[in-house]
Amino acid sequence: MTQKTQSRSGGRSARRAARAAPLAAHLRPVRPGLSGGQYRPLTAADMDNIHAAALDALEQIGLADAPPSGIALLTGAGAVLGGDGRIRFPRALVEDTIARANRSVTLMGRDPAHDLHLSGHRVHYGTAGAAVHLVEAEGRNYRECGVQDLHDAARIADVLDNIHFVQRPMVCRDITDNLEMDLNSIYACCSGTTKHVGVSFTDPQFVPHAVEMLHMIAGGEDKWRERPFISNTNCFVVPPMKFATESCQVMEACIAAGIPVLLLSAGMAGATAPSTIAGAIVQACAECLAGLVYVNAVKPGHPAVFGTWPFGLDLRTGAMTGGSGEQALLTSGCAQMHKYYDLPGGAAAGIADSKLPDMQAGWEQMCSNVMAGLSGLNMVYEAAGMHASLLGFCHESLILGDDLIGQALRCVRGIEVTDETLALEQIREVCIGGPGHYLGTEQTLGRMQADHVYPTYGDRTSPKEWDELGKPDLIAKATARKEEILAQRSAARFDPQLDAQLRARFNIHLPA
Amino acid sequence: MTQKTQSRSGGRSARRAARAAPLAAHLRPVRPGLSGGQYRPLTAADMDNIHAAALDALEQIGLADAPPSGIALLTGAGAVLGGDGRIRFPRALVEDTIARANRSVTLMGRDPAHDLHLSGHRVHYGTAGAAVHLVEAEGRNYRECGVQDLHDAARIADVLDNIHFVQRPMVCRDITDNLEMDLNSIYACCSGTTKHVGVSFTDPQFVPHAVEMLHMIAGGEDKWRERPFISNTNCFVVPPMKFATESCQVMEACIAAGIPVLLLSAGMAGATAPSTIAGAIVQACAECLAGLVYVNAVKPGHPAVFGTWPFGLDLRTGAMTGGSGEQALLTSGCAQMHKYYDLPGGAAAGIADSKLPDMQAGWEQMCSNVMAGLSGLNMVYEAAGMHASLLGFCHESLILGDDLIGQALRCVRGIEVTDETLALEQIREVCIGGPGHYLGTEQTLGRMQADHVYPTYGDRTSPKEWDELGKPDLIAKATARKEEILAQRSAARFDPQLDAQLRARFNIHLPA
Repeated sequence: MTQKTQSRSGGRSARRAARAAPLAAHLRPVRPGLSGGQYRPLTAADMDNIHAAALDALEQIGLADAPPSGIALLTGAGAVLGGDGRIRFPRALVEDTIARANRSVTLMGRDPAHDLHLSGHRVHYGTAGAAVHLVEAEGRNYRECGVQDLHDAARIADVLDNIHFVQRPMVCRDITDNLEMDLNSIYACCSGTTKHVGVSFTDPQFVPHAVEMLHMIAGGEDKWRERPFISNTNCFVVPPMKFATESCQVMEACIAAGIPVLLLSAGMAGATAPSTIAGAIVQACAECLAGLVYVNAVKPGHPAVFGTWPFGLDLRTGAMTGGSGEQALLTSGCAQMHKYYDLPGGAAAGIADSKLPDMQAGWEQMCSNVMAGLSGLNMVYEAAGMHASLLGFCHESLILGDDLIGQALRCVRGIEVTDETLALEQIREVCIGGPGHYLGTEQTLGRMQADHVYPTYGDRTSPKEWDELGKPDLIAKATARKEEILAQRSAARFDPQLDAQLRARFNIHLPA
Repeated sequence: MTQKTQSRSGGRSARRAARAAPLAAHLRPVRPGLSGGQYRPLTAADMDNIHAAALDALEQIGLADAPPSGIALLTGAGAVLGGDGRIRFPRALVEDTIARANRSVTLMGRDPAHDLHLSGHRVHYGTAGAAVHLVEAEGRNYRECGVQDLHDAARIADVLDNIHFVQRPMVCRDITDNLEMDLNSIYACCSGTTKHVGVSFTDPQFVPHAVEMLHMIAGGEDKWRERPFISNTNCFVVPPMKFATESCQVMEACIAAGIPVLLLSAGMAGATAPSTIAGAIVQACAECLAGLVYVNAVKPGHPAVFGTWPFGLDLRTGAMTGGSGEQALLTSGCAQMHKYYDLPGGAAAGIADSKLPDMQAGWEQMCSNVMAGLSGLNMVYEAAGMHASLLGFCHESLILGDDLIGQALRCVRGIEVTDETLALEQIREVCIGGPGHYLGTEQTLGRMQADHVYPTYGDRTSPKEWDELGKPDLIAKATARKEEILAQRSAARFDPQLDAQLRARFNIHLPA
């Protein structure tokens, strides 16, 4: 390696030139699917003990309230229906299911460039939730959210590099009919983004209608089945240890229609799950393992995400809290169990309890997001925009979340140790007869883009520059960016002919 | 274990009663010295390679600019002075030094309750730095900082549970004489807190004056030497690979006076250190190993903190940046190398590039603080209050940092896996014939304080409650707390007689 002995100003102009050049996608410092796993909150013995307790819970306690179809499927697979109506799972059945289950799942986007390959410790961040409020950042105000807010969130997420999927983060509170709400949620998300979309169905009867819409969007059933671009968030359990009867029927219908499912167990530690972190993880694992047996009893190998989502509770008030260190541990511990099972998994992180995108929101969102990523969680749900312990969604916060998650992803990417990065020769050349600094070295210039994540909204100016710029406000910058995105024509919008067909067939609430 | 089958309202009143009781110190959910180490960004091979490169750098490149006294000490210990004036370190000398160095260091407080026991992966958070601005959060303003600001910072830190030490975070810009500045910095910190204090001396000639003051505060030289309650932040190198001649002389004087030293190597990755994370860590390790040889050549076993503090640089502008993911990796990688050597170590985290305590500051401070803790860094310096890439210090941010670090410490504490926390029996009792929820169980009530960190300033209200409370502002809450703390008489203040003696002997700028 040769040492450039440029003057400092030579280095600076070379840096300017280098940063003007566009960066090829494969050289970008962060991208979807970077591998975590460097953070392991549980020891090997801890994981063995959690798994053993989950197996005991399944074999001895089991789950109540399966629908008749589920009872038939599960007992057919080897589970045992007790006189108390609970279905118990012999450990051999559970372990065989784990052994035969998918080691990887691909969640597809309408645009294949956005496909998510879930396996190993590959990490993806995205939205999720069922917020009932839209947070107006500038006015510091909460109001009921509607279908336009959901569509706007999808449109914003579509252009943010570090938001890798769009699970519906808000409920359309302005649509009172549940079937219309479910269908319009699909429309609002899919017409706003070509990234993978997650939705949820209230009633098994709604699934055929949704499937009809999906076939139309895909251009036919065959095209849909080849590349399903939505998944169903399926709250198949009511913790502790009860099947959600109707959601199980939704799940069966989704599997039949080729919709990947997120097996979502959302216990509240201290209310519907044990208050201890380990206990909440045990119960979540037990419930999701039951779900995995269920899915594979319906259709072996159907794509399913192992969705252990235990949430925290403020035990002083009994209210949910998602911004705590305990939440970050719940999620990271679950991620490690997913890898213990070698199953594609997801959990919740990035939740702020704070009502607004303020300093509290920043520390809450980063804590669980970076720990989730470092623990190798495949799908980090609720990663951006969520406030008030999941009750509010904020477009400005979603935009700032792109910066925040970019930084978390840089941490997930980790430290590259090679002869080149160890830089011994560079140190020698700089120190002995060299310029005594690294500003202009080939290695510094060559890596200034590929190694470093630069914030888009985050401010790095000096106090003097900041003052001269009029002390720019972070929220105001995000609001301006939101308005800019929403003023543009969305690249994800449906072809006009398809749009007309969808509007003729369904009652679409968004204006054309 | 018995299962209480209280009604939900019974559980709630029991929780209210439980939270009214004070919590014994040993039952508090977080405390100084919790053990991290669950996060390991480097593999064993990575660490071997980093160490090998550091040894090569020391043996082949060496360090320039040692003072004559240092040359004598180091060559006496087995280092080799080259014709080029550089001192090179045979690997056997370095490895012997590591083998014989302290495995633990205790940094003492004026109050022994605040002693910091540095060893293994035990984590402590505190302030540090040399900010030249005080950030006025409410007015969004930067102004030059002075001795009163420094004293106020010490007083605030003194009452914050999660700020474990007070290394001087600001420079007294209102004191032009350097000797007076150094002495007044000691006075301002030590009269504001009984926690361990870190200071820095500009000139070796100043050390005897400082030592005189320390003896007076301690009540005599013997008492000082028994329990030294300050350490010296010693920037003994000018990276890359040059001794800071004068600082080395300061270090020798400090060692003679029984002052523990922080061996601080503050390279800027891309300017005074290689731009790669691995390369910056190699150089920092090499420099601190040279420092360790130096300290042990002066006085074997003198307490020293291995201070690899590489900082990040925004390579687009050449300006320092401390709030990046790269910074979090630099610090965490260094922490892991400290444990590779089994040496007490420290590095910088918690730095915000943001000018104000806003959402950006929250995510920046949490990212590196939680990763530093999880990597088991003994001393997390600059952990609270630092803005504008170290140029500004903010009292409100320091106060909010207490909440932020409390959450990071909860993450460091990790997931406890025992028969009790696995909760299998509790799950059984709740699900089978039990109440179907965990709200009132003995285990939930018994652990609601000891397991959970509750924020002091962080808001967990519902949107409705928040609205009814008048939408409380985070910064306003911190400002109110600051005013409350500063209005109280400080428990750390000096005895009036001692204070009069100090004021008679030294030109103390703080008003009496």
